[in-house]
Amino acid sequence: MTTRTVTCEPQNFRRVLSSMCTEPHPLARQAASRFLATNPGDPTTYRTVSKLESEVVERLGEVTGQSDVEGYIASGGTEANIQAVRAARDFHDVNDPNVVVPEHAHFSFHKAADVLDVELRTVPLTERLVADVDAVAAATDRDTVLVAGVAGSTEYGRVDPIPKLADLAAAVDAFTHVDAAWGGFYLPFTEYDWNFADAAVDTLTIDPHKLGQAAVPAGGFLTQSRKIMDTLAVETPYLESTSQATLTGTRSGAGVASAVAVLRELWPDGYREQFETSMSDAEWLADALSNRGFDVVEPTLPLVAASVSERLFERLRKRGWRLSRTANGELRIVCMPHVTRELLESFVETIDELR
Amino acid sequence: MTTRTVTCEPQNFRRVLSSMCTEPHPLARQAASRFLATNPGDPTTYRTVSKLESEVVERLGEVTGQSDVEGYIASGGTEANIQAVRAARDFHDVNDPNVVVPEHAHFSFHKAADVLDVELRTVPLTERLVADVDAVAAATDRDTVLVAGVAGSTEYGRVDPIPKLADLAAAVDAFTHVDAAWGGFYLPFTEYDWNFADAAVDTLTIDPHKLGQAAVPAGGFLTQSRKIMDTLAVETPYLESTSQATLTGTRSGAGVASAVAVLRELWPDGYREQFETSMSDAEWLADALSNRGFDVVEPTLPLVAASVSERLFERLRKRGWRLSRTANGELRIVCMPHVTRELLESFVETIDELR
Repeated sequence: MTTRTVTCEPQNFRRVLSSMCTEPHPLARQAASRFLATNPGDPTTYRTVSKLESEVVERLGEVTGQSDVEGYIASGGTEANIQAVRAARDFHDVNDPNVVVPEHAHFSFHKAADVLDVELRTVPLTERLVADVDAVAAATDRDTVLVAGVAGSTEYGRVDPIPKLADLAAAVDAFTHVDAAWGGFYLPFTEYDWNFADAAVDTLTIDPHKLGQAAVPAGGFLTQSRKIMDTLAVETPYLESTSQATLTGTRSGAGVASAVAVLRELWPDGYREQFETSMSDAEWLADALSNRGFDVVEPTLPLVAASVSERLFERLRKRGWRLSRTANGELRIVCMPHVTRELLESFVETIDELR
Repeated sequence: MTTRTVTCEPQNFRRVLSSMCTEPHPLARQAASRFLATNPGDPTTYRTVSKLESEVVERLGEVTGQSDVEGYIASGGTEANIQAVRAARDFHDVNDPNVVVPEHAHFSFHKAADVLDVELRTVPLTERLVADVDAVAAATDRDTVLVAGVAGSTEYGRVDPIPKLADLAAAVDAFTHVDAAWGGFYLPFTEYDWNFADAAVDTLTIDPHKLGQAAVPAGGFLTQSRKIMDTLAVETPYLESTSQATLTGTRSGAGVASAVAVLRELWPDGYREQFETSMSDAEWLADALSNRGFDVVEPTLPLVAASVSERLFERLRKRGWRLSRTANGELRIVCMPHVTRELLESFVETIDELR
């Protein structure tokens, strides 16, 4: 190995319990490597990957309950959420646009509000850690252009009451957006109402590079409406295509190809099996932590939060565990596909050693 | 090969004369494949790739004449240009911010103006196809937050008089941005004044995934000023890092790793050789087209534009050449590293057959 070799992330994902990304599926890796030199942002030049992108969008439509869906593969959930706010702002003719989100909305909504210069109204959660519908109702008004709900929150994996949020949005003629960036590939195997089929959802974020097991970057921006795509489009001279609705310009063909490969392989049975395994592992972990006297937030999707001391948290990190915390300071374990039962057992063993 | 295999772009890059991306360098490909599962957007979890990103930024500082540079690896030039406009808008306290760009500025500035709700003032070019300094001066006022120049324009590869534009920006207390997304890896081997060392440049776009021969996505956003990075930062709960200055959230470790690998290998000699070869090929092509009676725009960087009939253009495309046009309808050939003399000879042969 020479100094010129760029060496790999040490112990790649081995002890990563904090990430909403995961080891890409082997077929996703393979496809990504093959398409490193393509750009779906220039569809006339790169026709094959452009067709693959249409296929991914169609398949994401199956995952989200809408066969006739429009959209594109974004750099990630942040871009998709920014685009949802942008479309809502530009579609509605109001003086002082505002966007209503529950407190657990991803920080990309704060970024979107900053970038797009709209007011962000953040409303509290209920005790069950989902959007408080009354608070959302109180926050909306005639200048509201978007009500966003989260389907699989970053901190606790909770799902907002999307149909009720959509009703509130409709009442003030605003768009409804669902951020299922993380949860979107688990939710089809649950009883939750969250997608285009369950409510009048205008736009939706679902990221193949999270639970979809595609390679980064493969986020998903979906909408039911051609008009929304048109709202986002700007003209593109010197590309032979005529307009571009994406926020970024050049885009990754690797992400697109990897998403196609893994969706063809895993949807729906492979994803269902992963969900069942991860959910059972999350429940096992919640019990294990609870049995040891930690205060655990009951997992409703495969994400476990538990109160641990600052001292224990730091000691666990020093032992090589890659961990993160909720805003309340709870330890937060995301049961991604690379987080196996064995890994969790070894994590709990470390806790037993350190307590 | 089963139906599940995602097959490669047919004849990848073989006849692509229209793209500002290219076949990544073999070392870039290798590094990208190794880092497909990493996310520099979460630097505490993915520490190795985060260190590599600092190295890329430092090396891009060498390319752009500023050893003490700040910045990050963006999804591409569009993101970097949007960020430049965003920083300028947010840094300056004016009522009705405007951004002054020459007519040949990339369409990402139109996207930026739309997204960020700033006025875009587009000023004409001189006969030499560069920004008309008097027109720029006339367009700036106390509400101007940014004057942008292009160093390697998309249509003709021309370089604006950056030091003069920087003076005009300074006169109204605005930022100066240089879009060297494409040209940045050729310009160090020319006499042009374009970078941080040549003028008071605040922000600069330079894309490793274009002439840097890295894999997509690897754009570059650079600045001399910590304050500008702070202007862009938003808080990041549940990431253990505290803030994020990027427009996107999750980002591609593959792009970062591939940029490090190729910069270590090619800067400066490899890039210089590529520039000399491509420049000489562009001049050969310009002569060949001129000798055949076509009206050619003299190449000053390796990009050739020539007037051809609509009929010839369509017939060339039907023969498999991937081509694009300038807004004036001229055929536009970008001499990227994959565009060899042999490829250009074969292209000219096709022209001879079809005329």
